[in-house]
Amino acid sequence: MPLEALRYPITPVGLHYLLIHYDIPLTAADSWTLEIGGLVEQPVTVTLDELKAREAEELTVTMECAGNGRARLEPRPESQPWLLEAVGTARWFGTPLRPLLEEAGIQDGAVEVLFTGADHGREGGMDQQFQRSLSIEDALESDAILAYEMNGAPLPPQHGFPLRLLVPGWYGMTSVKWLTRIDVLAEQFSGYQQAHSYRVRQEEDEEGDPLSRMLPRSLMVPPGRPDFLTRERIVDGPCVVEGRAWSGHGEIVAVDLSADGGETWEAAELGEELGPWAWRGWSYRWEPEPGSYELCCRASDSAGNEQPVEQAWNVGGYANNAVQRVPVSVS
Amino acid sequence: MPLEALRYPITPVGLHYLLIHYDIPLTAADSWTLEIGGLVEQPVTVTLDELKAREAEELTVTMECAGNGRARLEPRPESQPWLLEAVGTARWFGTPLRPLLEEAGIQDGAVEVLFTGADHGREGGMDQQFQRSLSIEDALESDAILAYEMNGAPLPPQHGFPLRLLVPGWYGMTSVKWLTRIDVLAEQFSGYQQAHSYRVRQEEDEEGDPLSRMLPRSLMVPPGRPDFLTRERIVDGPCVVEGRAWSGHGEIVAVDLSADGGETWEAAELGEELGPWAWRGWSYRWEPEPGSYELCCRASDSAGNEQPVEQAWNVGGYANNAVQRVPVSVS
Repeated sequence: MPLEALRYPITPVGLHYLLIHYDIPLTAADSWTLEIGGLVEQPVTVTLDELKAREAEELTVTMECAGNGRARLEPRPESQPWLLEAVGTARWFGTPLRPLLEEAGIQDGAVEVLFTGADHGREGGMDQQFQRSLSIEDALESDAILAYEMNGAPLPPQHGFPLRLLVPGWYGMTSVKWLTRIDVLAEQFSGYQQAHSYRVRQEEDEEGDPLSRMLPRSLMVPPGRPDFLTRERIVDGPCVVEGRAWSGHGEIVAVDLSADGGETWEAAELGEELGPWAWRGWSYRWEPEPGSYELCCRASDSAGNEQPVEQAWNVGGYANNAVQRVPVSVS
Repeated sequence: MPLEALRYPITPVGLHYLLIHYDIPLTAADSWTLEIGGLVEQPVTVTLDELKAREAEELTVTMECAGNGRARLEPRPESQPWLLEAVGTARWFGTPLRPLLEEAGIQDGAVEVLFTGADHGREGGMDQQFQRSLSIEDALESDAILAYEMNGAPLPPQHGFPLRLLVPGWYGMTSVKWLTRIDVLAEQFSGYQQAHSYRVRQEEDEEGDPLSRMLPRSLMVPPGRPDFLTRERIVDGPCVVEGRAWSGHGEIVAVDLSADGGETWEAAELGEELGPWAWRGWSYRWEPEPGSYELCCRASDSAGNEQPVEQAWNVGGYANNAVQRVPVSVS
């Protein structure tokens, strides 16, 4: 998502970030089925039309890739070289996950719920479908939906057509696209995307901590105009710096702006809230003298998390929510 | 555009390639005007509604960035590091350019028509709007339209909302987005994007040859499934390799496939034509033994152009239409 698209409360389709692990699979809505099985009383196979006939709700959700900020790390971990653009906000429409699981009947001894997508490839030397699990509690309590519309239209192919999981507040890898199966498990899922990928570790061979909810982050629309090659910004004088901030851990309670690379900070003004799972706008009237600056913005959430000024390296380059830095030349 | 999207004759919005020189400008349809001036009898200012009330036509157009293939060059020229994905096909709807220019009345002595977009930034040390020109003949004879719809909906912001030039058959830089002005000129335009950028040169300080129409290129949907990190392909056995081919110089008359890196070639079967400005599908039944292969595809057009097997380097990394190479492991 080009950062000037932070201007839109709802990111236009085609500007929302995308992470496609393998290929976009070729899918058809009319023959699509979702199987719910494993440790349930009533294994079921439901069609897309049957899902659409169920209760439905719309969630406005800011979704971010767990690898956002990776390319700012030194040494740079090998994977998608995201700077800070791996984010977007959409209106997702679908049927809640919880009643589906309750109707299928989760058996005693169940520990996790596994979600399987239709995309497949080889990773870590293993052929696999993309699969991610949630604890029973997270599956039931996270407000997750099975979404079949995005911004009022059927899901585009690249966003999971015809059906995807949508877990608000979590990093994007959780929201399995092209969803074909839901399995209730008696033990923790040990597949590649759960036990190896998407874990914060300092050494390749340690177990690491699993990623879940998004840490707070604030991004600004880079002010002024860009230099083509360096993407440095040129600003003519006083201007309003604006942006958006989000967290998967709670409400955004403050955004601060620094014009000196994070030495000193001033409070930005928070805008209206779009909803519990969406980013919140903010703005700051900046009145600089001519010169060179490094603008930074920093968000804090109601759970007490604040963005760090320095990057924290890890093997996968995940969850790097250090403050954005925008070099600006004021004439 | 992820190459598996070659499956779609019309590229879904959000998968079509994008090249945004500066920022996506903030534009509004209701206050948008296009000025036509310079060496014309009747300078005019037209609103978007006035343009929509004029004659309209739809063109199905394959558009490619002139820098597509750049990242395959060694040393790699500094700019968008495109591999081969900078392409897409859309249905563009708008009003023809020629009658607009004829009504304005091109004066004697006119040489070129200049198109100015609303995007601005600094490049080559100069502040500028994005601007490109066409000769009078190309402006009148190229079937160009001023497009306000893409795939049946208003242009998305990133594709030039609310109005863009669309010159079929030419590399994408020609089709100026966020179009605000058309000026008829008495001399050749010497602005940055015409006299410096988008020229094929071997040395930084030579004049170089301007880019115009797309050279032929064929791309395949990489068969099988990918390895996540290397993106190498794994194929289980015989399969149909399919893709699309296009040229701005004429019809596609042949597509050949090689499984040995371009040493030997066999003819693929051409599919239906979508229209004079759109790519053409092709397919090839491949029956390999287990082993390692390098698949290549090569297109030829009715003007006698054929894709080269080796890359031709130039300073800007433009118009590199060397054949696609896809390493495949067959099990």
